[in-house]
Amino acid sequence: MKTTLWAIGLAVWSIRVTRSQTNLGWDVLLDVSGQGARHEQLARALRKAIRDGVLGQGTALPPSRKLADDLSCSRWVVTQAYAQLVAEGYLVARTGSATRVSWSGVSDRSVPPLPVPMPPRYDLAPGLPDLRAFPRQRWADALREALSSAPYTDLGVPVRGGHPRLRAVLAEYLRRCRGAATEDVWISAGVCSGVTLVSRALHAAGITQIAMEEPGWQRVRQAAEGAGLTVISVPVDAEGLCVDQIPDGVRAVIVTPAHQFPSGVVLSPARRAALLAWARTADGLILEDDYDAEFRYDRSPVGTVQGMDPRRVVLFGSVSKTLSPALGIGWCVIPPQWTQAIRAANPVAAAPPVLDQLALAIFIEQGAYDRYLRAARLRYRSRRDTLVSALANVSGAAAGLHLLLHLDCDAAAVVQRAAANGLKVVDLDYYRTTPGDPALVLGYGNTADSSLPEAIDVLKAALRASRHD
Amino acid sequence: MKTTLWAIGLAVWSIRVTRSQTNLGWDVLLDVSGQGARHEQLARALRKAIRDGVLGQGTALPPSRKLADDLSCSRWVVTQAYAQLVAEGYLVARTGSATRVSWSGVSDRSVPPLPVPMPPRYDLAPGLPDLRAFPRQRWADALREALSSAPYTDLGVPVRGGHPRLRAVLAEYLRRCRGAATEDVWISAGVCSGVTLVSRALHAAGITQIAMEEPGWQRVRQAAEGAGLTVISVPVDAEGLCVDQIPDGVRAVIVTPAHQFPSGVVLSPARRAALLAWARTADGLILEDDYDAEFRYDRSPVGTVQGMDPRRVVLFGSVSKTLSPALGIGWCVIPPQWTQAIRAANPVAAAPPVLDQLALAIFIEQGAYDRYLRAARLRYRSRRDTLVSALANVSGAAAGLHLLLHLDCDAAAVVQRAAANGLKVVDLDYYRTTPGDPALVLGYGNTADSSLPEAIDVLKAALRASRHD
Repeated sequence: MKTTLWAIGLAVWSIRVTRSQTNLGWDVLLDVSGQGARHEQLARALRKAIRDGVLGQGTALPPSRKLADDLSCSRWVVTQAYAQLVAEGYLVARTGSATRVSWSGVSDRSVPPLPVPMPPRYDLAPGLPDLRAFPRQRWADALREALSSAPYTDLGVPVRGGHPRLRAVLAEYLRRCRGAATEDVWISAGVCSGVTLVSRALHAAGITQIAMEEPGWQRVRQAAEGAGLTVISVPVDAEGLCVDQIPDGVRAVIVTPAHQFPSGVVLSPARRAALLAWARTADGLILEDDYDAEFRYDRSPVGTVQGMDPRRVVLFGSVSKTLSPALGIGWCVIPPQWTQAIRAANPVAAAPPVLDQLALAIFIEQGAYDRYLRAARLRYRSRRDTLVSALANVSGAAAGLHLLLHLDCDAAAVVQRAAANGLKVVDLDYYRTTPGDPALVLGYGNTADSSLPEAIDVLKAALRASRHD
Repeated sequence: MKTTLWAIGLAVWSIRVTRSQTNLGWDVLLDVSGQGARHEQLARALRKAIRDGVLGQGTALPPSRKLADDLSCSRWVVTQAYAQLVAEGYLVARTGSATRVSWSGVSDRSVPPLPVPMPPRYDLAPGLPDLRAFPRQRWADALREALSSAPYTDLGVPVRGGHPRLRAVLAEYLRRCRGAATEDVWISAGVCSGVTLVSRALHAAGITQIAMEEPGWQRVRQAAEGAGLTVISVPVDAEGLCVDQIPDGVRAVIVTPAHQFPSGVVLSPARRAALLAWARTADGLILEDDYDAEFRYDRSPVGTVQGMDPRRVVLFGSVSKTLSPALGIGWCVIPPQWTQAIRAANPVAAAPPVLDQLALAIFIEQGAYDRYLRAARLRYRSRRDTLVSALANVSGAAAGLHLLLHLDCDAAAVVQRAAANGLKVVDLDYYRTTPGDPALVLGYGNTADSSLPEAIDVLKAALRASRHD
């Protein structure tokens, strides 16, 4: 019977100790319920009442025997709960005197959670690969294999710079597919994390300025700035970064040679040579963001600049634009003479979770990554062809996940009109520090194939309407 | 026949173009093999030869027809490979002239990979939970469920501060099990990452000093220092941090109230009150590292200080000491008035990989975390009891994953002798900025139960021998 009562009480046990039931002059609802042992439930209820200010500082609590009677529990439950809250500083107990509240409640008002943005109906914003096509089954298999095959020591603190297995697999991959020289591959959480690591080392070495393509990817800019560097914008023309406009005295530059974001140009052979000559003359370091390099539709992808002078170039890459940014795995290939400085400037930099690193290693080793990229290339190419044939005045190499649409009307107006009809597109000005010729950056990575024609219709309607403003 | 030759060639295709075979005056072995199409293989071989300096700058390559003959391939293969390397800047092609090498090789000498330390035979170093007992199967199940149930939008860029599902699950967990007030739970890569986030915000707010327990966990110290803060050591006595020794003017402090690392003391009720009073008087911020809080063997774990004044305390926790540091998931509960500053000071801080966050949410939701902790608590308690009964002069609350062994001989000598016999133990001085009374920090989290008696024997022998020095 007693047990049955307890069982019921565990679910809904809440008691009201009214003024009339006690001689303590307090009136409170203790919600003694929830998970855990009974004394834990009581401690939680008392803690909450004190915190909420229901039990004010100095309030005497009833003797344990009395409260135990009121709650139909053993005295031990009450003394345990009291002792717990004494240890936590909410109560004080003095021999021969009542246990009293020794804490004045601080109300912790609720902060409304940040709203999670709804995905747009049609998404032509750049920056994402095809999330609908993420190889869930194969990735789950790779994770399970990682979990079942990793020695227990792999579950310890992740090794600085990444798991040796993934480092070796990526070194081979980057040599084979990206023409990179891969002595020292570090695993990072992505390109921005990698740029942060290197920027901190530059800053520690007294290099306070870094040149960057204008227009360019603003999160990379923020990463460099977050590490204390001043970012100097250098224009991009049809051949890529205008290397001769890097100001004197600047000793570091961030570039996207394979497929510039967002202009879509590929760094020309002459500019590649000029960039490397600059690095030698200025004793400079080139931060090569190997953006979009896996996707080239008209020829083999251009190899990395890093492969031409691995002592002058840090190569950055990730799976964020090939598989998913949710995986949080990237890499950087670091010139040997910078390794020590980067370690020293980032004493607590964490490698990505080990199981994810192992899963990626397995995914690449088994050929699943190459197969996935081949299939993705076909999809993206077809989307790009659809956009190019539907829209006049686009530019950008036959590569990557985005192109530029040049406008003869106000870009902001087009963005707004498109948004009103459920289409997300991004103004090129978003990636520039000073506004320029009107254009949109159209990304086709994360667009549903079935809705692409409708998205184009919405975009064309927005263009027509904006021309008549 | 031609096809068969090609098929063989794809596996072992390597050709030697000797001085006698060409009129170009060069002698080189091109290793044309490996994965990819034939022109990619040839491009890779030429790139390597240029990079290695085998083909020096200015070297004229054979006409495409000639090389195609030598290689028994189509002329298209050669022109494609040449075009690729022209685009990459390794070659220049001028009409009416030979294609020439336009790049001088930079030899990239190999850097030996960092040695991976072998695990010791007996491990009594602190800092790790029981890696052998990691719930691989249940974690794999949680990952698979995350992968199969997440909407595709969850595979986009991780939301700043963490996935809403894990934030909600942890908020409930921390309220229930840690007596925390949980308005704004952020997901981080671990305690050190969280301390970095907050330390940067402190620095940006003009707070340049932070007090920290001495002895203390040096990686947390490095995290604060890495964010530009000066760390001021404040001693720990039998009641925990000596709050009255925090110097005037210091406005931030890092503490481990639930179970101080490495001394093992629990912050006393009086000190908890003093710490909160300090925060109010000094307008200070308390960084509460909820270290080891899940494991208390004599009573319920003491609730967080954060729960008593959530506007003055940032609460940090992680699964690194409960499940595994390889998972790279932690959290911080941030006072609302600091949220904006922390966002601003960490513009590119990445949340952990989304699938791992979802897996942890599922793991907790399903009760697997609570069950695992209950089982782990029994194992750790038994190991602690074994150590306490075998060794004289140990201290530290009946909690956590470590205890202190006080010595009457040189600690470094004991560490060395133990290491010589395969046992890893750590000198307390490792966690102090100035040496003090000799002691070892013994961790029993990652010790194999079966080898614990042998480990104790090795330790005792080292102690005996060192006493006779």
